[in-house]
Amino acid sequence: MLNQRGNGTSHSAPVRVVVDAMGGDYAPHEIVQGAVQALDRGNVAIALVGDQGPVEAELARYNVAGKPIKVVPSVGKIGDDEHPVQAMRQKRQASIVVATQVLKSGAADALVSLGSTGASMACATMLLGLMEGLERPCIGGPFLGLAPRTVLVDLGSNVDCRPSLLLSFAALGSVFARKFLNIENPRIGLLSVGAEDAKGNRQVQESLRLFRESHLNFVGNVEGNDFFADRADVVVCDGFVGNILLKYTEGLGSALLPYLQKQLAHLLPPQVVQRIGNEVWQMTNLPRTMGGPLFGVNGTVVVGHGSSKAAGVAGAIGTAMRCVEIGLVEGMRQELAALAKGAGAGQQPHPRGG
Amino acid sequence: MLNQRGNGTSHSAPVRVVVDAMGGDYAPHEIVQGAVQALDRGNVAIALVGDQGPVEAELARYNVAGKPIKVVPSVGKIGDDEHPVQAMRQKRQASIVVATQVLKSGAADALVSLGSTGASMACATMLLGLMEGLERPCIGGPFLGLAPRTVLVDLGSNVDCRPSLLLSFAALGSVFARKFLNIENPRIGLLSVGAEDAKGNRQVQESLRLFRESHLNFVGNVEGNDFFADRADVVVCDGFVGNILLKYTEGLGSALLPYLQKQLAHLLPPQVVQRIGNEVWQMTNLPRTMGGPLFGVNGTVVVGHGSSKAAGVAGAIGTAMRCVEIGLVEGMRQELAALAKGAGAGQQPHPRGG
Repeated sequence: MLNQRGNGTSHSAPVRVVVDAMGGDYAPHEIVQGAVQALDRGNVAIALVGDQGPVEAELARYNVAGKPIKVVPSVGKIGDDEHPVQAMRQKRQASIVVATQVLKSGAADALVSLGSTGASMACATMLLGLMEGLERPCIGGPFLGLAPRTVLVDLGSNVDCRPSLLLSFAALGSVFARKFLNIENPRIGLLSVGAEDAKGNRQVQESLRLFRESHLNFVGNVEGNDFFADRADVVVCDGFVGNILLKYTEGLGSALLPYLQKQLAHLLPPQVVQRIGNEVWQMTNLPRTMGGPLFGVNGTVVVGHGSSKAAGVAGAIGTAMRCVEIGLVEGMRQELAALAKGAGAGQQPHPRGG
Repeated sequence: MLNQRGNGTSHSAPVRVVVDAMGGDYAPHEIVQGAVQALDRGNVAIALVGDQGPVEAELARYNVAGKPIKVVPSVGKIGDDEHPVQAMRQKRQASIVVATQVLKSGAADALVSLGSTGASMACATMLLGLMEGLERPCIGGPFLGLAPRTVLVDLGSNVDCRPSLLLSFAALGSVFARKFLNIENPRIGLLSVGAEDAKGNRQVQESLRLFRESHLNFVGNVEGNDFFADRADVVVCDGFVGNILLKYTEGLGSALLPYLQKQLAHLLPPQVVQRIGNEVWQMTNLPRTMGGPLFGVNGTVVVGHGSSKAAGVAGAIGTAMRCVEIGLVEGMRQELAALAKGAGAGQQPHPRGG
């Protein structure tokens, strides 16, 4: 299968990932450490974009002589508290802007950022461009360890989505489920407050007809408990609901952890309590371990949770590598084109060559 | 303090609760059993409304001679799959219709139903009437054992709510938090995708100003993870989001339970595993243990989860008794009147007599 590198490189060539070393709560320390971990794990070449002095100082802590990792200098960063588009225009040397330009230039196959999601989305949208037929990008992926093969889209914060946008999210999520999770003909569900067609808000009601008329494998409305009942492979909702669910799940897991640890502390050895605790945390914090790709931009961009530590950074780099290897971006472009034509590309057999 | 019975009965008189014995997945068996459990626990007199033969047969299984429990005959029930208002008009002898009439007549102080929430709301709205200044009733209460003093409203399914309706929900939730949970001057939060005023969908943006201008103790936007961070006592959202969160939480707890039990099975004695499992289930299924009152109707109506078993039925009856004892309905009426006047009744000292 053709990959995103587009120049016919063989499978022995490493995937080139550019990493925003300044983004995230623990940047650049944990970002650099995570990048070094990723180097040891897979066939990857990494460019760390950031303030040269601090990033080189971090990198000097590791023995990377001869390994494919380098620093690309940038100046400053865009914070979570800044207006993404304004900041991007004012800080043209900021790490996420420079990193996105590296991806755009073709010098990298994928970009990973743990910084402001808004800034990553703005840079990707403005510099790489949106896929044809799409009005906004979104973020999707599995978000719950208890349902690791269920994709939720939009996890970002596209609020007040029109039905046509929700349908685009569904198409993009379907490609992700098919290519990333190897699910044939993914079942699409629309998140609502009842399984019947009559249940739901105006947005859901108006979307239903569009979903039914599309070529997608639409299974109807799904409810909050259906995430655990394997009723759909891709659950579609407005980013308002998706973001609330995502943060709620993280909070729930984080609150459950100390509770369980306290319950188990006097019953089990500390290392067993720790292991169970870690598993429960992972179940409710999946995006922190693997990041999530932006859907709908012309390039492979994976955004991770700002609170990610090295393992989460390495996980996001791994996600980016896999997105490149499976040709996710090209698959999404084809699916949106099929959607625009009202045709059934998603139902056609796809080449699954090596 | 005056109670809802309004006839000056002393505290030694039992609270009179009418129970829809036909509503719920396990009716009438578990409903009758739960009612008998409630009899043994508190100072309550119970009227079971349902098909006479089956309900009397269930009741005959218990030794209730001389106890204040009786059967009020009705014919049939309204199911979850029926249109509530139409069904209510066609089935005038259905259990929920008759039970609501018993409450309206003054022969009971409170009503408990585990049946169709839509039918309970329709009967309460049409027969008891809405409080002045309100366009729709809602359901609120704590919904999460990990945050048992945080009220979420609307847990029902009032979708597409206007800002003024959300403000009413906030006022009603505030009264519940103050009277039922004894929280002074409850903090109200509006559920959104970021703490800043600029974050949120159009509904939240438009509601913010109304909330700020009200006499309520509004603390701004809260996020999904804030349920676990004690940032607000009452979290307000559209019933679309509330219902998804409620069902999601139930599903998550139910999925976590077998996972934990499997993890712990070979490490701990079965009864300890069972106890921890029960606690985790309760943490995520609080409404199934206590039901939730309808907010905004002229009477005490507690609806419980359809899948409730006897313990949940007894819990819902207990909730109904407490709502009567604290004068919840009258408190809510006063609060809505204050809201209409733009005055600060919620801030005034309230008599807290015994």
